[in-house]
Amino acid sequence: MGKIKIAIYGFGNLGKGVVEAIKQNPDMELVAIFTRRNPAEIASQVNNDQISVISASSVSYYKSVIDVMIACGGSATDLPEQTPALAKMFNVVDSFDTHAKIPEHYARVDEEAKRAGTIGIISCGWDPGMFSLNRLYADVILPKGNTYTFWGKGVSQGHSDAIRRIKGVKDARQYTIPIEEAVNRVRNGENPKLTTREKHLRECFVVAEEGADKAKIEAEIKNMPNYFADYDTTVHFISEEELLKEHSELPHGGNVLRSGETGNGHKHVIEYKLKLESNPEFTANILVAAARAAYRMNKNGESGARTMFAIPPQLLSPLSEEELIKTLL
Amino acid sequence: MGKIKIAIYGFGNLGKGVVEAIKQNPDMELVAIFTRRNPAEIASQVNNDQISVISASSVSYYKSVIDVMIACGGSATDLPEQTPALAKMFNVVDSFDTHAKIPEHYARVDEEAKRAGTIGIISCGWDPGMFSLNRLYADVILPKGNTYTFWGKGVSQGHSDAIRRIKGVKDARQYTIPIEEAVNRVRNGENPKLTTREKHLRECFVVAEEGADKAKIEAEIKNMPNYFADYDTTVHFISEEELLKEHSELPHGGNVLRSGETGNGHKHVIEYKLKLESNPEFTANILVAAARAAYRMNKNGESGARTMFAIPPQLLSPLSEEELIKTLL
Repeated sequence: MGKIKIAIYGFGNLGKGVVEAIKQNPDMELVAIFTRRNPAEIASQVNNDQISVISASSVSYYKSVIDVMIACGGSATDLPEQTPALAKMFNVVDSFDTHAKIPEHYARVDEEAKRAGTIGIISCGWDPGMFSLNRLYADVILPKGNTYTFWGKGVSQGHSDAIRRIKGVKDARQYTIPIEEAVNRVRNGENPKLTTREKHLRECFVVAEEGADKAKIEAEIKNMPNYFADYDTTVHFISEEELLKEHSELPHGGNVLRSGETGNGHKHVIEYKLKLESNPEFTANILVAAARAAYRMNKNGESGARTMFAIPPQLLSPLSEEELIKTLL
Repeated sequence: MGKIKIAIYGFGNLGKGVVEAIKQNPDMELVAIFTRRNPAEIASQVNNDQISVISASSVSYYKSVIDVMIACGGSATDLPEQTPALAKMFNVVDSFDTHAKIPEHYARVDEEAKRAGTIGIISCGWDPGMFSLNRLYADVILPKGNTYTFWGKGVSQGHSDAIRRIKGVKDARQYTIPIEEAVNRVRNGENPKLTTREKHLRECFVVAEEGADKAKIEAEIKNMPNYFADYDTTVHFISEEELLKEHSELPHGGNVLRSGETGNGHKHVIEYKLKLESNPEFTANILVAAARAAYRMNKNGESGARTMFAIPPQLLSPLSEEELIKTLL
């Protein structure tokens, strides 16, 4: 049997992660990387003569040779346009993560995918994605209970970007940190009511421009609505060298917990926990598994948008149902 | 829309748990409990005039009024016979947990269910079941890695039974206890090689018959092959009163961990953890969610055996796909 032919659309941290992820999955091969930037520039980054880097403007020529396109753009402006457009030609998988806009994104991908006879799996990362799945499973098992999601410790790119937009800031990295005491109260089945401030801390490492007013920057960060005002936030000013040396990785993780009761007051706690040294690489590995499911669902005659809620878990695995039952059940 | 009509086949701890679980799921109703014992005796235990207790010999009369039968017998001798037999008449769900015999059980249920046009979901507990699902998801996300399963702290009914069969033993309770140091080494991403003895301890509480040779009982437990010989085992002799007072509950739990690498050596750890005050009630809640999926798959024209690997997660939930995407994704 031939390998599943994968292509990547957009070559940032996530796209790089997908290149690595495909190497770990011998039933797949990477056909091409599509970019809106200069292909020569990306090709020199990829530095692998087996991988073609192609201008995004030529993507339609590849309709018949690609089994699944992995859309690796950002959720703010790229994916809302790109995933529906790609679904017109390809089975497509993305990690769209703007929670509030998922229903709208789903509807647009569903419309295009149904019309084209393709499958579009959206929001396949770890949140949304694996965390969502764990919220669902825990919810159906313990209908009488409460679910808690904690994020971190990890770099929030959205919060780092928000700091970078402040006048006088040259660069910044923001860590979201779950408050261990709160996590432990949930683990103990206390079902606590927790405010935003009681769940997470925010720690910021900021490189200020020369002569910038640090006190003003710090105040502006701490009072920023939505992003920081509802949290206990600490701000450290550091040198650019230190930022590059100590804060260039993108770790993340977190926990989904549900505590609930059955029968006459028996308590139960379900916990799903991730500790990730590279957020984009881990997300990329999920996307690649989802690509396998997209390929199979489409081979099976299905079309339209899907989330991980709709994917029979065994379609994610290279093993047959029989092998899975024997080895993992 | 009418409620999903559920019946229970076999009324031990698990069947009792299912009665409670159905109360937490307003889209379902319990139609009847079937028993091979005296229905009057079970009825007095159930003590609810809304629930019929019926002789198992009459089960075929109920073919047209039950949407899903939940088979609550034991895995050793009941389910291998009962689940295939029930699949001839009903959609059926069980928690068959003899790992080595699952392929054979699957084949028999599949044959009967396909012939009858029913769905038979097998092995829907927490292991096999939720732990299996977590092994699968973790495996597909981190192909380069190792999976570890730890059980406990909890009562192992199989090990408790094994002790009870020893001459001079009146009653016994055995706790399986994961060795925290081993769990922590896995959590730290050390990928340790662990022997059976390094993963779990076994702690036994034994009520001896009057005049029994306790030293002999203790030696017999500790040297029992498969069950105890490969473990560090401690044995405590206690009174029957203490056993009833301190060890009458059936707590359990455990962890599935996978640690693996992506890209150029970034490490990741995925952990799924359960802490359960009642093993049978938690298992019952999983069975009831699986019953909902069985009902829907069958309504959708499907038939044959299934495991949780084949169930699209959203079929387990009373919420619509749209509501799930909005609230849990």
